[in-house]
Amino acid sequence: MAVDSDCKENFADQLITAIREKNSCAVVGLDPHFKLIPETIKQKLSGSQKQVLEYASRVILEFNTQVIDLIAPHVGIVKPQIAFYELYGWWGVWAYTETIRYAKQKGLIVIGDVKRSDVPRTAEAYADAHIGKVNIDDVVEAPFGADALTVNPYLGTDSMRPFIQTAQKYKKGIFVLVKTSNPDSGEFQDLRCGEKKLHEIVAEKTHAWGRDFVGKQGYSAVGAVVGATFSHEISILRKIMPTAYFLVPGYGAQGATAKDIECCFNPDGLGAIINASRSILYAHAVSPWKEKYGMSSWKNATHEAIIKMNDEIQNILDS
Amino acid sequence: MAVDSDCKENFADQLITAIREKNSCAVVGLDPHFKLIPETIKQKLSGSQKQVLEYASRVILEFNTQVIDLIAPHVGIVKPQIAFYELYGWWGVWAYTETIRYAKQKGLIVIGDVKRSDVPRTAEAYADAHIGKVNIDDVVEAPFGADALTVNPYLGTDSMRPFIQTAQKYKKGIFVLVKTSNPDSGEFQDLRCGEKKLHEIVAEKTHAWGRDFVGKQGYSAVGAVVGATFSHEISILRKIMPTAYFLVPGYGAQGATAKDIECCFNPDGLGAIINASRSILYAHAVSPWKEKYGMSSWKNATHEAIIKMNDEIQNILDS
Repeated sequence: MAVDSDCKENFADQLITAIREKNSCAVVGLDPHFKLIPETIKQKLSGSQKQVLEYASRVILEFNTQVIDLIAPHVGIVKPQIAFYELYGWWGVWAYTETIRYAKQKGLIVIGDVKRSDVPRTAEAYADAHIGKVNIDDVVEAPFGADALTVNPYLGTDSMRPFIQTAQKYKKGIFVLVKTSNPDSGEFQDLRCGEKKLHEIVAEKTHAWGRDFVGKQGYSAVGAVVGATFSHEISILRKIMPTAYFLVPGYGAQGATAKDIECCFNPDGLGAIINASRSILYAHAVSPWKEKYGMSSWKNATHEAIIKMNDEIQNILDS
Repeated sequence: MAVDSDCKENFADQLITAIREKNSCAVVGLDPHFKLIPETIKQKLSGSQKQVLEYASRVILEFNTQVIDLIAPHVGIVKPQIAFYELYGWWGVWAYTETIRYAKQKGLIVIGDVKRSDVPRTAEAYADAHIGKVNIDDVVEAPFGADALTVNPYLGTDSMRPFIQTAQKYKKGIFVLVKTSNPDSGEFQDLRCGEKKLHEIVAEKTHAWGRDFVGKQGYSAVGAVVGATFSHEISILRKIMPTAYFLVPGYGAQGATAKDIECCFNPDGLGAIINASRSILYAHAVSPWKEKYGMSSWKNATHEAIIKMNDEIQNILDS
């Protein structure tokens, strides 16, 4: 089977190229919330669908394409969270797939935030589905076609191997959940196992899993999800995983500020991508854009919000 | 919003009713493997589809409906593994949805093996999608409509709460990954955190999460996934989680035998459901059925395999 990725670079190199091209290490989380999507989009599509899950999914896809058009000049990476698509059933998963396709047409790198994990044979199916290919009677298709995906490490190395191998084969990336951004993340992740905390041991493994997949710029195709809400832990994790790209959620709506994420970066100004979802997509619903624009001018709000986010992160990197 | 589950029993009671009706605590894992699906089904559907992912998904659904018809007299519970549907993209997720619908029409309990987890707001979307409902402009739909789902605990209590609350609201169930059946499951799950192993601490939490959701038969709607390949650990886990139903994978193709799963049960003969997937669905491809029947008589092989599995488990329970 010919692999179209033969000519591609290591995923981390692709990531760094995108960051440099747009001069932005922001990631826009494409997390649809039906209630917050502007009425103009809903009105355009209302009445033409057989059922409500199809209607909602078409609204979501239309909104996403407009958001992608708006942000593509300013950011190189998007991250659809599949939970907010599964909420609309298989129609929602159709919208997820078409969102990925559209984002890639616009030259964006797409991280599928799916947090999958399972025993090895099942993990292989997830890997092939999300970042690999499936062979049906010698016809080869990429079911979802994302560039990278997020994975949960609880099942151990053999459950991670199919993701790592598939990423290697197709020059894709994975981001291992190491330390998450939710308030109770410490309950298991911070447990002391001998000298170390559990998430530090997971970090050591993540570094080891990525050791053989380091690209020309010194970063690995195996990255880590590290919550921006725990800056003390981040500094330690940065040392344990010097070559891992950190996917950092929690900027904006989840409470972390640009200052919190300073320690995610290496001295070279690389090593982290910072995600914001609701604070960009639904900027029209939050201050200061809410007062300035409101829903009818949502594009202005989203446009200003992404530029502000880029500026804030750049200020931190320059300081 | 009216909840149609007002008249339903606790999920664990529903489970026990199904077990008693069929006199079987087997779960058939509906894990499609396209290559192993009989040619007769493929020929029936070949040529009529626009593209290969649709074709494969229609083949899978047709196979599943025939399997469900075959096994429904003998087992009360099925467990589709969503990874093997995602492998065919959104068409595959359509087949997953329709499989659940058909199994429920036939009166079966459906456990969606999705192993989801995420931060609280995202976990809520997963819970609503898989076992709950979504409200779109006051139209309410159940996107996937499973009776229970499997979840990954790595993110802690606040990430589990949306699943538990949604299960409670709609009288559904969850199964928390406590100790998995893969060879490397011990890498993190067996780490010593003070006096206890990590999976024992997860088990204690699982017991606590389920404490308020115990049904009339003494079992909780919050169950646990416990690999049958580790019988020493199972005995300890049985004591830590006396009221949790164990969902036990690993019977048949994954190598565990009926003897291995003996310690999953409580003295009342309840407390565990035993999953087999490939050894039932593709019985025609393995000994002794392979020699006896072959692919053209696959229904005979599957039929005999499920009866044999029921008998083996019953022998253990009687001994």
